[in-house]
Amino acid sequence: MWPRLAARGSLRGTMCSPQLGSSVGLQAAMDGAPPPTSPTGLSAYVAVSQLLGLTLLATTGAWLGRYRGGVAWHSPLQFNAHPLCMVLGMVFLQGDALLVYRVFRHEAKRSTKTLHALLHGLALVIALVGIIAVFESHRAKGISDMYSLHSWCGMATFVLYLLQWLLGCGFFLFPGASFSLRGWYKPQHIFFGITLFILSITSCLLGITEMLLFKISDSYSHFVPEGILANTLGVLLVAFGLVVGYVLTREEWKRPPLAEELALSMDFKTLTEGESPGGGSQ
Amino acid sequence: MWPRLAARGSLRGTMCSPQLGSSVGLQAAMDGAPPPTSPTGLSAYVAVSQLLGLTLLATTGAWLGRYRGGVAWHSPLQFNAHPLCMVLGMVFLQGDALLVYRVFRHEAKRSTKTLHALLHGLALVIALVGIIAVFESHRAKGISDMYSLHSWCGMATFVLYLLQWLLGCGFFLFPGASFSLRGWYKPQHIFFGITLFILSITSCLLGITEMLLFKISDSYSHFVPEGILANTLGVLLVAFGLVVGYVLTREEWKRPPLAEELALSMDFKTLTEGESPGGGSQ
Repeated sequence: MWPRLAARGSLRGTMCSPQLGSSVGLQAAMDGAPPPTSPTGLSAYVAVSQLLGLTLLATTGAWLGRYRGGVAWHSPLQFNAHPLCMVLGMVFLQGDALLVYRVFRHEAKRSTKTLHALLHGLALVIALVGIIAVFESHRAKGISDMYSLHSWCGMATFVLYLLQWLLGCGFFLFPGASFSLRGWYKPQHIFFGITLFILSITSCLLGITEMLLFKISDSYSHFVPEGILANTLGVLLVAFGLVVGYVLTREEWKRPPLAEELALSMDFKTLTEGESPGGGSQ
Repeated sequence: MWPRLAARGSLRGTMCSPQLGSSVGLQAAMDGAPPPTSPTGLSAYVAVSQLLGLTLLATTGAWLGRYRGGVAWHSPLQFNAHPLCMVLGMVFLQGDALLVYRVFRHEAKRSTKTLHALLHGLALVIALVGIIAVFESHRAKGISDMYSLHSWCGMATFVLYLLQWLLGCGFFLFPGASFSLRGWYKPQHIFFGITLFILSITSCLLGITEMLLFKISDSYSHFVPEGILANTLGVLLVAFGLVVGYVLTREEWKRPPLAEELALSMDFKTLTEGESPGGGSQ
């Protein structure tokens, strides 16, 4: 049974049975075999996501630098820190924070979890700087706040993202939450994590549309280079979300539990007769 | 073993093992037990999704009727058919087409599949009318086509949605595709189905922002009723997507295979030594 599963690419068996897939890993660990490698295709998709992520950061920089005068904090250019920070924090770093369970699939769960929380925390701080930039810039120019659909979606996303981060730390990083409570919250955390990532990208697209219609409404319909560049940034944002979403949702790419996690989860199961939130794939 | 699984709510066992969960259903069918009911909570979530769907259609109608002069085909109001058709086709009907596998979970797979294809087909036709409306309206007013991020995202979504529908019919509805080819395509079909639904909602949000900045750019920042109503429509679109997405991705709400499908899939498995695309949950 084991050799046959391994010959199928080692992950066929984990699709509907993490316990079974993990047993293969446990067996391999017991035999002193080398640690399993990443599944075929995963590395390529992750590499494409990073290439897209860096390209969309460069495109944002190019748009702001070439057509919007660049970025400076204590100046009329303060507003430009907003799109740069939001793309960097709420898209690139948030996306990478979601990918850590796929990329560092053979590291200890605790380390991966800490990196996941740190990247989300960094994303939050950078996004906060971006939000301060837009509020200060509006105040300096006498522009109203929070009237547009972009601001409604963006602010709701940021507040819920902060809440999700706090809940995530409370449930999974710090001790206190019971095993069954973690097990109940985990699928909600995953669903809302992906939802907030999608909402972040959507808010960026709304922001791009708003900025173009504020700045180049007269020439946008003539296919001017700035319009095409900013539209391309929108397409890159969608492409980044698509690749990250594909990596996250592909069943056989989910993180298999390590041998020691499986052993621990089996001990817990025996003790509590409950399900293990850490033992399943994430 | 069986009574214990059943006592847990009958679906615990299907989470990671459709075969096991189906065996319970098969057992129940053999015992002449009444057909299983929908899982707890699913009906409530579906009801909320339909309430949200109808509310967002009413809100679109209210916006166009109260502030944009209503809808008429051979007139300057032709453009207004565009938002109405896109919200009805690409959001409400597309969302409902995705939900049929959760709602009609105890009907024959063939009937559910046909309804799924018909609803998507109807959505496509209505969306096509909406697209014709905007192109004809632009031509009448001498406005350029396809320059904005909304038009790029919207058109890409429509073309890919049409392609997805054609591929779906080719693979699953008409005979011809082999069992293994269907099995390979099914997860891609599901991933791109949800992705296109999200992209449709995103395109609508971009369209709302565009329309508001074209029509009420001077008063939008003063929190005028039209701006608040249209922003609320955007929030309702996000809420509809969120509820539909939650219903679709909740593991224990996926459609369990019927007893006869399971028997058929087991026959096929014996014959082909392959996996069953119809036997698993969708």
